[in-house]
Amino acid sequence: MGVVIPFGAGDDTPAPSLDALVELVNDDMNRVNDGILARAQSHVELIPEIAGHLINSGGKRIRPMLTLASARMCGYAGEHHIKLATAVEFMHTATLLHDDVVDESDLRRGKQAARVIWGNQASVLVGDYLLGQAFKMMVETGSLEALRILSHAAAVIAEGEVLQLSISQDTSTTEDAYMQVIGAKTAALFSAAAEVGGVIANRPRDEQAALESYGRNLGIVFQLVDDALDYSGKQANLGKSVGDDFRERKITLPVVLSFRRGSKEERNFWKRTLEEGNQTDDDLIYARKLMEKHDALSDTIERASHYGDIARDALAIFPDNAWKQALLEAVDFCVTRAC
Amino acid sequence: MGVVIPFGAGDDTPAPSLDALVELVNDDMNRVNDGILARAQSHVELIPEIAGHLINSGGKRIRPMLTLASARMCGYAGEHHIKLATAVEFMHTATLLHDDVVDESDLRRGKQAARVIWGNQASVLVGDYLLGQAFKMMVETGSLEALRILSHAAAVIAEGEVLQLSISQDTSTTEDAYMQVIGAKTAALFSAAAEVGGVIANRPRDEQAALESYGRNLGIVFQLVDDALDYSGKQANLGKSVGDDFRERKITLPVVLSFRRGSKEERNFWKRTLEEGNQTDDDLIYARKLMEKHDALSDTIERASHYGDIARDALAIFPDNAWKQALLEAVDFCVTRAC
Repeated sequence: MGVVIPFGAGDDTPAPSLDALVELVNDDMNRVNDGILARAQSHVELIPEIAGHLINSGGKRIRPMLTLASARMCGYAGEHHIKLATAVEFMHTATLLHDDVVDESDLRRGKQAARVIWGNQASVLVGDYLLGQAFKMMVETGSLEALRILSHAAAVIAEGEVLQLSISQDTSTTEDAYMQVIGAKTAALFSAAAEVGGVIANRPRDEQAALESYGRNLGIVFQLVDDALDYSGKQANLGKSVGDDFRERKITLPVVLSFRRGSKEERNFWKRTLEEGNQTDDDLIYARKLMEKHDALSDTIERASHYGDIARDALAIFPDNAWKQALLEAVDFCVTRAC
Repeated sequence: MGVVIPFGAGDDTPAPSLDALVELVNDDMNRVNDGILARAQSHVELIPEIAGHLINSGGKRIRPMLTLASARMCGYAGEHHIKLATAVEFMHTATLLHDDVVDESDLRRGKQAARVIWGNQASVLVGDYLLGQAFKMMVETGSLEALRILSHAAAVIAEGEVLQLSISQDTSTTEDAYMQVIGAKTAALFSAAAEVGGVIANRPRDEQAALESYGRNLGIVFQLVDDALDYSGKQANLGKSVGDDFRERKITLPVVLSFRRGSKEERNFWKRTLEEGNQTDDDLIYARKLMEKHDALSDTIERASHYGDIARDALAIFPDNAWKQALLEAVDFCVTRAC
C-alpha cells in the first residue's frame, strides 16, 4: 500500500495549504490574538510570563481558526465567535501545559517546555488559570449551548489523557484503543471548536452536527499525521525534532501497525525500546527502518486520508462559498502535510 | 494578647458545632453525595478510583454545605442547588489533587496522597476531569450568573496558588501578602459557594453580596484556623499530623507573626528551616516554642475571630430562621475549633 495523496502532487495543481483559511480569518484572528494577550494578564507576573511563552511559541492556532471559520461560513455577523475562539485556544494551551507535566517533556514546539523553565508546579497552576479564564469568556457569550459543548469537551479530553496513561507503554495496544484515545484527547476539542461556530450562529441542529463531525474527523487527521511526522524526515522542517514520541515511549499508530505486522524479534525490539524504555543511539534509526518495511507511516497517512474524506463529506450540506472551500482545503492540507 | 473565644467556653453554653447545619442540610447532602459518586464515574477505571480515594477520605464538605444552606435560607425550593453544590465540591477536589502535586505532599487528610499511589500524572488529569464535570453540572442548571461566579472563582483560585508559589519560602512575607494568597486560594471558593446559593434562589443583589461576603470571611477564618491547628496539639485529634506545614516549608500566618516578632537569631532559625529547608528533628518543637513565646497561634485565632465577626455581620440583613442560625454557628465553630 502506498501513500494516498488526494490531489495536487505530480501535476500543476498547487499543493493544498492553509493560506486561504488564514487569509479569510485574518481580521478575526488578530482580535483573537489581542484577546489572548489581554486574558493571559494577571498581577501575578508568573502567569503572563508562562502563558506568553506558550502563546508566542508559534502554534498554528488551527483550533480557534475552526471556530472563526465555522461561524463565518454559517453567516454569523456578531462578536461572540472571537471570545469562543479565544476560549478554545486557552483550553488548548492549558492542555499543553498539563501534558508537558504528564509526559515529562523537555521540549514543546522546538522550545524548552514551560515545566523545564518554571517547574511542574507553575505549569499545572497556570494551566488551571487559563482554563478558568476560558470558562469566563464562554460565560460572557451567554451561550449555554456553547458552554455545554466546551465543558463536555474539557471532561472528555482529560478522560482521554487518563486513558492514554493507562495504555501507555503497551505495545500490544490495538488500533481501536488508540483511535479511542485520540478521539478524546485531540478530536474532541477540534469537534467542539467547529461545532460552537454553528451554535453561536444559531444554525439548525443538522448543520451543528455537520460541523461537529467535520471537526472531529479533521482532528483525527491532524493527530494521525502528527504521529507519522514524528518519525518522518519532514519533521525537522517544522521546527520539531524527529523521534520525540519514540524517546518519550509513546504508543502511536505507526508503532501499533509496525508491532502488529512485525516478526517476533521485531516485537521484542518494540517491547525493549518502548515498554522497558531500554534505548540505544541506533534504535530510532532501526525503528524508522521497521516502519518503512511495514508501510507503517504511509498507511498511517492512508488512514488519515480516510477520516479526511469523512470530514469533507460532512461539510457537503453547506452551500458553496469561500469559507467552505477554505475549510475543505484545510482537510487536504492536514492530510498531505506529511507527504 | 490572649485567645478570643466568642462564647461557650468556661460556662454551661455548649461549644459551637456544625451539628445544626449538618442536620439541616442532611437530605440535600445525601443527594449531593449521590451526585458526587455518579459524576465521578467513567469507563476509564482510574478516574472513579482516584476520585473515590479523595471523595471517601472524610472531608467535611463544608463548601457544598454553604451552597445548600445559602439557597435554603433564601427560600429556594428547586433542584439546582444540588448540582451547584456537587460542582463546588468537584472544584474543591480538583484543587486538592493539583495542590498535592504542586506541594509534593505525601499525605492528604491522614491518608496517602493520590499522587503517591497513582502518580502526579494521573492526579493532574483526574483533577482536570473533575473540573470539566463541575462545569458540565453548572451548565445544566442554566444559570449563567452562577457560571460566571464559579468560573471566576476557578481563575482566582489558580491565580492565588501561583502567587503562593512565588512567595513560597520567603519568611519575610508580610501579613498582607499572606492574606492576599488565602483570599484567593481558599476564600474565593467559600465565597462563590455561598453566593451561588443566593443566585439560584434569585435573591436581590444585596443578599447575594451578603452571602458572598459571609463566604469570603468564613473562608479566611477556616484557613487561618487551619494554619494554627497545624502547629497545635489539637491537630492530632483531627486525623492530621502536627507540623505538616513546617515540614513542607509553608509560610503561614503563625510563621509570619513569629518571624516579624522574633529576634535576629530567631529569624535565622526560620530562614534556615523554611527558606533553606535545613531541618533537624528538634526544630518543630523549637518552632512551636517560638510561636508560644510570641503568641503567634493565639493571635492567629484572634485574627480569625475578626473575620468571623465580619462574616456574622454580613448575614444580619437576612430574617432570622434556623438556616441563618446554623450558618452563624458555623462561623463560631470554625473560629473555636482550634481552642
